[in-house]
Amino acid sequence: MAIAKLNLEDIRVPADVPGEVADDYRRNLHRATRGTGRLMLFAGDQKIEHLNDDFFGPGIPEEDADPEHLFRIASQGTIGVFATQLGLVTRYGRDYPDVNYLVKINSKSHLLKTKTRDPRSWALNSIDQVLETRERSGLNIVGVGYTVYVGSAYEHEMFAEAAELAFDAREAGLFSVFWMYPRGQSVADEKDPHVIAGAAGTAVCLGADFCKVNYPQRGSEPRGELLRQAVKAAGRTGLICAGGSSASPQKFLQDLWDQINVGGAVGNATGRNIHQRTLTDAVRLCDAISAVTYAGADVDRALRIFAGDEKFSLPG
Amino acid sequence: MAIAKLNLEDIRVPADVPGEVADDYRRNLHRATRGTGRLMLFAGDQKIEHLNDDFFGPGIPEEDADPEHLFRIASQGTIGVFATQLGLVTRYGRDYPDVNYLVKINSKSHLLKTKTRDPRSWALNSIDQVLETRERSGLNIVGVGYTVYVGSAYEHEMFAEAAELAFDAREAGLFSVFWMYPRGQSVADEKDPHVIAGAAGTAVCLGADFCKVNYPQRGSEPRGELLRQAVKAAGRTGLICAGGSSASPQKFLQDLWDQINVGGAVGNATGRNIHQRTLTDAVRLCDAISAVTYAGADVDRALRIFAGDEKFSLPG
Amino acid sequence: MAIAKLNLEDIRVPADVPGEVADDYRRNLHRATRGTGRLMLFAGDQKIEHLNDDFFGPGIPEEDADPEHLFRIASQGTIGVFATQLGLVTRYGRDYPDVNYLVKINSKSHLLKTKTRDPRSWALNSIDQVLETRERSGLNIVGVGYTVYVGSAYEHEMFAEAAELAFDAREAGLFSVFWMYPRGQSVADEKDPHVIAGAAGTAVCLGADFCKVNYPQRGSEPRGELLRQAVKAAGRTGLICAGGSSASPQKFLQDLWDQINVGGAVGNATGRNIHQRTLTDAVRLCDAISAVTYAGADVDRALRIFAGDEKFSLPG
Amino acid sequence: MAIAKLNLEDIRVPADVPGEVADDYRRNLHRATRGTGRLMLFAGDQKIEHLNDDFFGPGIPEEDADPEHLFRIASQGTIGVFATQLGLVTRYGRDYPDVNYLVKINSKSHLLKTKTRDPRSWALNSIDQVLETRERSGLNIVGVGYTVYVGSAYEHEMFAEAAELAFDAREAGLFSVFWMYPRGQSVADEKDPHVIAGAAGTAVCLGADFCKVNYPQRGSEPRGELLRQAVKAAGRTGLICAGGSSASPQKFLQDLWDQINVGGAVGNATGRNIHQRTLTDAVRLCDAISAVTYAGADVDRALRIFAGDEKFSLPG
Amino acid sequence: MAIAKLNLEDIRVPADVPGEVADDYRRNLHRATRGTGRLMLFAGDQKIEHLNDDFFGPGIPEEDADPEHLFRIASQGTIGVFATQLGLVTRYGRDYPDVNYLVKINSKSHLLKTKTRDPRSWALNSIDQVLETRERSGLNIVGVGYTVYVGSAYEHEMFAEAAELAFDAREAGLFSVFWMYPRGQSVADEKDPHVIAGAAGTAVCLGADFCKVNYPQRGSEPRGELLRQAVKAAGRTGLICAGGSSASPQKFLQDLWDQINVGGAVGNATGRNIHQRTLTDAVRLCDAISAVTYAGADVDRALRIFAGDEKFSLPG
Repeated sequence: MAIAKLNLEDIRVPADVPGEVADDYRRNLHRATRGTGRLMLFAGDQKIEHLNDDFFGPGIPEEDADPEHLFRIASQGTIGVFATQLGLVTRYGRDYPDVNYLVKINSKSHLLKTKTRDPRSWALNSIDQVLETRERSGLNIVGVGYTVYVGSAYEHEMFAEAAELAFDAREAGLFSVFWMYPRGQSVADEKDPHVIAGAAGTAVCLGADFCKVNYPQRGSEPRGELLRQAVKAAGRTGLICAGGSSASPQKFLQDLWDQINVGGAVGNATGRNIHQRTLTDAVRLCDAISAVTYAGADVDRALRIFAGDEKFSLPG
Repeated sequence: MAIAKLNLEDIRVPADVPGEVADDYRRNLHRATRGTGRLMLFAGDQKIEHLNDDFFGPGIPEEDADPEHLFRIASQGTIGVFATQLGLVTRYGRDYPDVNYLVKINSKSHLLKTKTRDPRSWALNSIDQVLETRERSGLNIVGVGYTVYVGSAYEHEMFAEAAELAFDAREAGLFSVFWMYPRGQSVADEKDPHVIAGAAGTAVCLGADFCKVNYPQRGSEPRGELLRQAVKAAGRTGLICAGGSSASPQKFLQDLWDQINVGGAVGNATGRNIHQRTLTDAVRLCDAISAVTYAGADVDRALRIFAGDEKFSLPG
Repeated sequence: MAIAKLNLEDIRVPADVPGEVADDYRRNLHRATRGTGRLMLFAGDQKIEHLNDDFFGPGIPEEDADPEHLFRIASQGTIGVFATQLGLVTRYGRDYPDVNYLVKINSKSHLLKTKTRDPRSWALNSIDQVLETRERSGLNIVGVGYTVYVGSAYEHEMFAEAAELAFDAREAGLFSVFWMYPRGQSVADEKDPHVIAGAAGTAVCLGADFCKVNYPQRGSEPRGELLRQAVKAAGRTGLICAGGSSASPQKFLQDLWDQINVGGAVGNATGRNIHQRTLTDAVRLCDAISAVTYAGADVDRALRIFAGDEKFSLPG
Repeated sequence: MAIAKLNLEDIRVPADVPGEVADDYRRNLHRATRGTGRLMLFAGDQKIEHLNDDFFGPGIPEEDADPEHLFRIASQGTIGVFATQLGLVTRYGRDYPDVNYLVKINSKSHLLKTKTRDPRSWALNSIDQVLETRERSGLNIVGVGYTVYVGSAYEHEMFAEAAELAFDAREAGLFSVFWMYPRGQSVADEKDPHVIAGAAGTAVCLGADFCKVNYPQRGSEPRGELLRQAVKAAGRTGLICAGGSSASPQKFLQDLWDQINVGGAVGNATGRNIHQRTLTDAVRLCDAISAVTYAGADVDRALRIFAGDEKFSLPG
Repeated sequence: MAIAKLNLEDIRVPADVPGEVADDYRRNLHRATRGTGRLMLFAGDQKIEHLNDDFFGPGIPEEDADPEHLFRIASQGTIGVFATQLGLVTRYGRDYPDVNYLVKINSKSHLLKTKTRDPRSWALNSIDQVLETRERSGLNIVGVGYTVYVGSAYEHEMFAEAAELAFDAREAGLFSVFWMYPRGQSVADEKDPHVIAGAAGTAVCLGADFCKVNYPQRGSEPRGELLRQAVKAAGRTGLICAGGSSASPQKFLQDLWDQINVGGAVGNATGRNIHQRTLTDAVRLCDAISAVTYAGADVDRALRIFAGDEKFSLPG
């Protein structure tokens, strides 16, 4: 299945992007989406979000314990963007200058559970700090990310920070990806497709260029189809689906294919399923995901790529 | 019933509008009110306020699930202003450049119920961001909107943001519409005409140019008459009445006529009753509403317009 | 009883008034106090504070429901200043350019009761907005007002805002009036003369030029005498007494006379007792109050003025 | 007992005082400490802190009810500095230009008790406002004061404001005095010498030039000796001891002497014990305190001065 | 065991350090790490954190009660940096100009226990104030410190302040050390090696150059080995281990050796174990720690140095 090529000049520029940075905005999107409008996001913000749970323990290879593992994967695998906190970017970025970085702006730890208090996550950095870092280092920072907990008792704080961030990002020619998670004591079911669709629609209203949602679930209904409501609600904001917790490559890649080809997602955001592997396997999984996302590969081809039986790379 | 024409030069300019933008202020009001001082507001801020409840489900046409449905209606129907969040405006506005936009500045989701916590809604955007967007895109942004929950434990935050917004808007030649909703654990009856009148009076004190209130209700008293207290309390701040949840066209248009001609409202703010229809029907309902609002049509004529038996449009 | 004339040059200028606006400060005080140092304040901030309770209902004339009623009274009656929110000033001020306006900076609604939560009221406007409005319109804005709830769990917020306001006002040559109300779950008796005196003393420390307190009450002790402690505590900050809820003209004017001549108040702040009357009666009551305040009239003369049997006006 | 003379040039200038205001800093300290490094602080911030309790009631002379009483005492008595809120300084200062003023920056009322909520006190004024006032009036404002409630649930707010204030003060050549009070529901004993010493040590870390603590108490141990731990903990930050509630002159002066000569305090901060007297007595008590503080007088001599049997004054 | 020499030009400069201050950043790190990349931090921020508990009481020498004791140790002992609050630095720094100072930016007292409320600590000073102080005094301020309570209900505030601080520090060529403590009612075990590793990983994401953690403990497992997970998680952010409460020199130095040589820490942060000794002993312990840290001494040699049987110093 061929993916339509999105020419640089065909990228729609939102009304709040200043004319003088419109080309930067287009180039950043074009670069991250590999000229397709689709997005393979390698998620590496869990060192705060999940502390060391995702990086150390039974079944996790030892090399994942070192933060540099993430950068090695991002550098050697085929990805769209590598999303992580500015602190990590500043520490390792100069040694991995070819990676497209998406700076994850807010993060919280998971020690305080939702049943104790609704989630609350504040911006760690300003767009100005992101831009200064890019200027000082020449790194390919193409966008920013932000988590919004819809339905939290603190959603007003995150809505306000997110909308400000989206505006400031576009003003600088960057794009934004919002992690849209319904969560809080008033949220009965975080996987409810209808509520997830509401969260996706919220992302558009806040000015996000992409939104990341969890893969909806309702009884035994086909999840790819359940995703469609959210994709529709997101409108011109590209929806990408979270990779979720560890799964077999077969199941993971099938889910991915469904999300895109059944559900209408424009891509995915995967963290643990990638980095909780040896560097070789992680890189191959990136390639496989990108093959599905950017090159329309089917699951069989993706599995061959993951197994190392077929090489995959994208130009440029 | 003829509607008095409001000449541009007859529009009263509030004392905080700077001389150099007085004409902008007049033009924005004139444009939105179609030269009548009345206002037909097409409300499209529910993608955050009600998540996907208003856009997807039984009885809602499939096309409503796509945010662009709102823009198609706003563009093809006869309306005064289309009120929605800046994020949506930036995403679709360039393709619908003829619409008069009113940027809804604050929004909250409905996941957290009033019985759990009093409503709290913060500004997503500043007037500067609105003006920058207008400057960068040339869109017809004529005003801003803000929801104030009177009686909420957080009313102090919203009162302060609203008053600041009203001032900043006028400083830039824009007008403001405040959604004035008595709501919170201390509010016994949100539809009480006396409390709604108090909310309307509050809007004037905060500097609103228009205020939107819910249609008051008390037992079986005629609701149009109950509205009069609020209209009086609002004084020179034009009062418009919310369309509320879905109703039959007959009932909806009769209510609208009563609100304006019995209650003294200067217009209406309608969302769901419009967009939860096919594009054709939604456009015709906009026309019917505008006929009542701007051209003094009676309910029968409005129903003919809605049925497609009579065309309606306004010059300009 | 003759009132001493306060010459412009005799007005004490506080140490934080810059030299270049000292004459403005003197002129504003002179204008509001009609050259006597006394102050008749017509209070019109209840549209937020009491919502529509004071403006509509049994015993309230229909014309009070319209905000313009307040402006008509302020314009036709003899008053010192008309205190109301900036939003109202901007809406009606240009049509009533001769009125001395005092902008009430903060306000809250009364829906949330003290037993539910301690009172919390935030500034709606900045001094800069007040000054800009004055500059843009040429209106006679001579001062600002602010309510401080002493003993509230939020007194720290109001103390800080009030002190900032007092300083900023004087910096611009304006004076300030603070409504000093002991209120909150820790306040046993809001009318206790000793606590009211403490509130009055607090006003001086916060930089107020005038403070408004409720008329103290303790058993059957003469209230005028009970007021003396507060007057003393206020020192050089002029103390004015609130008019309170509706009373017969006889009782109201006797109280007023006692407050000034027994208690030592320099004036009064009256709202409901004035505007809950027809325009004619309201204007006459303003004249009667001003006769007591500014011209030393006794109660009999004040009653004749209120009855229309004697005309009263002040020069300039 | 002779007090060592502290020459202007010997005053240690903290590292954050800019070179260009180092002489101002030295002069302000020299002036307040009468060239000794010791400090007699006349505390007059109770009009907010204790409302009218300290100024009106049985055993309090009538003249104390008038705020000007404080200024008369400060002007006629021998003192180091008179500490009070900026509002009072601006109202009376121009008539008492020779007084050394220390502006008390934060204050709260005592209506909300610790058992209801931990103490919370915010800054009323900025250093800029203090400096502007000094500039506009030429008043001798030599320093600023701030109360820190160590152990309160709000200590983080006060720690941050206090440290900011200390820095800003020194930047302007002013010195700071912090009232260091352990208080809150987590503070078992406010008079515990060990906890008071901790509070004194905190003051140094926050950048205070002087700290005021309550006189420690533990069973029947000699209180002067108990004070030593705090004096030691304060290091180069001069510790002064609060005068506390009313006491007989004999006991008060003996305590004072002990605090300085046994405990090692560099002075005292006294309010009620001074101003709850007639002007004559209050002035004499100031002289007596200053004799002990600045001239090494013993208790007998101090009592003679208080009795009017011996005159006392300091040069300049 | 020889410690590799870290040449100035080999120090990795994070991507957010501006080119024009890169050499300052390198020099500050080189200076603090004595050209090794390791860090011996003498912690002296307890005067707020623990009030006077660490400075006065049974078993604590009298000289520790005086804040200057800390400066004498820092000046005479071999250390990397002396970490304390700005207030102390400004008071004593000019007399101890050779010390490398690390300004501890936030601090709280320990009066409010975790079981009462989760820890909450705010910045006392800005980087600008630190830089101004350095500029005005010429003191060797090389970095800043900040405590982050991971898992506290207020972690969002501290995460945001810390990330801002790290960025601002590097922008000025300073480095940052974060005290990373899992603490709060949701933290089951503050010494859990896995949770501590998560805290260490969080420090990297926040932009810290070094992080300080408590020495992990789990049953009777060798603690040095338990530390490895955290060291790995910290990646390029150097991990130093807290010295903890008092211990015998033998045990303390053995722990230290294990932390570095078994666990992989790049150094230590020790407070009480140093300053709760006479000056002579404290200085010798600093030397002994530095011998282990910077010169690869074994425990026996370190004990000889502590006993005064061997001299130790580092060049420069």
